[in-house]
Amino acid sequence: MKSVADKQLETKGAAARKAARTLAQTSSHVRDNALITIANTLELRQDEVLTANLKDRDAGQRKGLSNAVLGRLMLDSKSIHGMAADVRAVAVMKDPINETFDVSKLPSGLQVGKRRVPLGVIGVIYESRPNVTIDVSSLCLKSGNAVILRGGKEAIHSNTVLVNLIRDAIKNTEIPHDAVQFIESSDRELVGQMLKMSDAIDLIIPRGSAELVRRVRDESTIPAVTGGVGVCHIYVDKYADVDMAVAIADNSKISRPYACNALDTLLVHSSIAPIYLPQLATIWAKSGIEMRCDRRALSLIGNIGNLNATPIKNDEWGEEFLSLIAAIKIVDSMDEALLHIETHGSGHTEAIVTNEYANAMRFLDEIDSGVVLVNASTVFNDGGQLGLGAEVAISTNKMHARGPMGLKELTSYKWTVLGTGQVRN
Amino acid sequence: MKSVADKQLETKGAAARKAARTLAQTSSHVRDNALITIANTLELRQDEVLTANLKDRDAGQRKGLSNAVLGRLMLDSKSIHGMAADVRAVAVMKDPINETFDVSKLPSGLQVGKRRVPLGVIGVIYESRPNVTIDVSSLCLKSGNAVILRGGKEAIHSNTVLVNLIRDAIKNTEIPHDAVQFIESSDRELVGQMLKMSDAIDLIIPRGSAELVRRVRDESTIPAVTGGVGVCHIYVDKYADVDMAVAIADNSKISRPYACNALDTLLVHSSIAPIYLPQLATIWAKSGIEMRCDRRALSLIGNIGNLNATPIKNDEWGEEFLSLIAAIKIVDSMDEALLHIETHGSGHTEAIVTNEYANAMRFLDEIDSGVVLVNASTVFNDGGQLGLGAEVAISTNKMHARGPMGLKELTSYKWTVLGTGQVRN
Repeated sequence: MKSVADKQLETKGAAARKAARTLAQTSSHVRDNALITIANTLELRQDEVLTANLKDRDAGQRKGLSNAVLGRLMLDSKSIHGMAADVRAVAVMKDPINETFDVSKLPSGLQVGKRRVPLGVIGVIYESRPNVTIDVSSLCLKSGNAVILRGGKEAIHSNTVLVNLIRDAIKNTEIPHDAVQFIESSDRELVGQMLKMSDAIDLIIPRGSAELVRRVRDESTIPAVTGGVGVCHIYVDKYADVDMAVAIADNSKISRPYACNALDTLLVHSSIAPIYLPQLATIWAKSGIEMRCDRRALSLIGNIGNLNATPIKNDEWGEEFLSLIAAIKIVDSMDEALLHIETHGSGHTEAIVTNEYANAMRFLDEIDSGVVLVNASTVFNDGGQLGLGAEVAISTNKMHARGPMGLKELTSYKWTVLGTGQVRN
Repeated sequence: MKSVADKQLETKGAAARKAARTLAQTSSHVRDNALITIANTLELRQDEVLTANLKDRDAGQRKGLSNAVLGRLMLDSKSIHGMAADVRAVAVMKDPINETFDVSKLPSGLQVGKRRVPLGVIGVIYESRPNVTIDVSSLCLKSGNAVILRGGKEAIHSNTVLVNLIRDAIKNTEIPHDAVQFIESSDRELVGQMLKMSDAIDLIIPRGSAELVRRVRDESTIPAVTGGVGVCHIYVDKYADVDMAVAIADNSKISRPYACNALDTLLVHSSIAPIYLPQLATIWAKSGIEMRCDRRALSLIGNIGNLNATPIKNDEWGEEFLSLIAAIKIVDSMDEALLHIETHGSGHTEAIVTNEYANAMRFLDEIDSGVVLVNASTVFNDGGQLGLGAEVAISTNKMHARGPMGLKELTSYKWTVLGTGQVRN
């Protein structure tokens, strides 16, 4: 017999599916207006959001959540205006759906084309940051998709208010408010049930830990875009500009160390390492970066003051640190660097720093990752930075979408065929 | 402890993964030459293939396989030359990989683009037809992908020879022969193991029964393109040209009744049905089509000679007949037709016959299927017919690829970012 929670989830799924059909037929004007209404409502009702957010943070403090988690949880007036601004920015973007492409007229006389359509219903499973509720909802509505949100229990009060606010806002538009569904229960069993709802959900996006991503891969009967786990490498080539390589490694590590696109392992060619590494290590020592080094790297930087450098353990290559830690290895050739990345990378983001054209091209050819950069920081692997305007996730899948996913990556297509009575022999 | 078969599968997976890396770096010239060599070898060694095929057919006859299965199994000299010609046709197609697209220069000065790359390793699970072994291998090699083939046990001798022949042929080229792997064992357990090999396989394509497709959906930890199940509808609108509608329905049902794109359910507007249905039913009666009709349809055609028409059972709507059977229903409006398709369709292929522009456009807008046709036969849902040149499967997924999948649908992309030292603030 199904539990009450099970049945509620089924009801939400069916409601989302029904709303998706209506939503798919709305004009961009209707969807854009709904987003503007959401942004306005968010600002009008900010007190309600802040009160709920305070409840979450109080509960979090009582439960002893880390400062990092409490920080990600926190909303204030400024962040709410920022969220509203983001929604308005999505509203003015080009409509991703209804575009017709790959058009041709075939010898049979058939006029064939593809028309971009919404995927249908997107299921998103995410953790502490309540702004994801607004971001993801606006991207889904803009692209004509209904969404079923399953946020983290630590943000339950904030998310509940935010979702109610979205649903209230779109009640005054032509968009069915059931297009945004929220799973209030923090029961982890429900995630398992959600992953089997292939009739109701077309795409699952897990945004969270490596454990969540694995669970989705192993349990989901719904196609999923998995990502979020970025073991990112920079290879400082023999022919690198030393200053540029220092700036890029430093920016890649320090600017957002908790993000998936942050540098994890630095590979340095042995012929440039004696000049390069002491320069970088001096800067990193001041920033409190913990350096886990192979034997040769350690011997090159061992005498720098305030250094936090230790020999790396073998099983730490390929670790995603998500903190102020970097692994450092000296390599004797580009082959060695490529092999290291192939062995330990997660296919997320890798960069080379070099002034040698052939090496840059070889790196672009042979590295099999979502985003491959030459002479630029790894943290550019981001939808906003790469020109998508908005981002729903960063995929390490090869299917459907790879790298940062924007509005277009929330769409599918259908073939349209116009005939004049053609039959096939 | 792992069985010998398990370990063999792991070994094949690792070999395919390794070969895929080499294959991804080959030029189109090398891949095209390998295909030509395969085509030549196939013709040179046709006696060997035919002898093996005879063994399969003898075994099949002893086991009492149906004539349909035995027919699909059969190869002769003509079909082998046809297969070789298909491989040569794939060889001369445009290289789907290494194309750069979506190029832009961003305000940061970064030059961003996407480069098309192979998916990596494709796993294909298929049934009786041994030509799939050659078709799929040539499409995978052309698109730079390694392939792990798991054919049906009824074709085991034919497939073994065909795969050995492919591997022998590419031994004389720059393509690693491990790029084509074959699972000889007919142990069904191995399919289960294959579906969990997410480290070795990037995409699973099940080509076969609805049961196989379900098994893949439920068990696979690897992204899959599912398809093959086509419950196809034609809606004959009030404003249809009667002769055109007769020809289209007849061709959609009769030309290849065992294929997934064949007509299953015919929906006829009540105002045109009294003229249309008797005309079609007279033709279908002569062709031995079994018509399963709703009450009103039956009353319109009941007096036609040699008619094979029976009242439809309620649970037969939405059935894929894969034979000379068609369901027929009278509807009183386009809304009723759309709702029927939404309720009973499988998102594969639907067609409208109408001379009314607004109704044609509404059908294209509202039907959510891989291929939607106006005034053309459903059997045009086919890679070759829609201009792809070759087809690896017809997807009813919305993710990655929908409808017929050609070479491009066997690719992914990576983002390439060229900088001059950019860091992010």
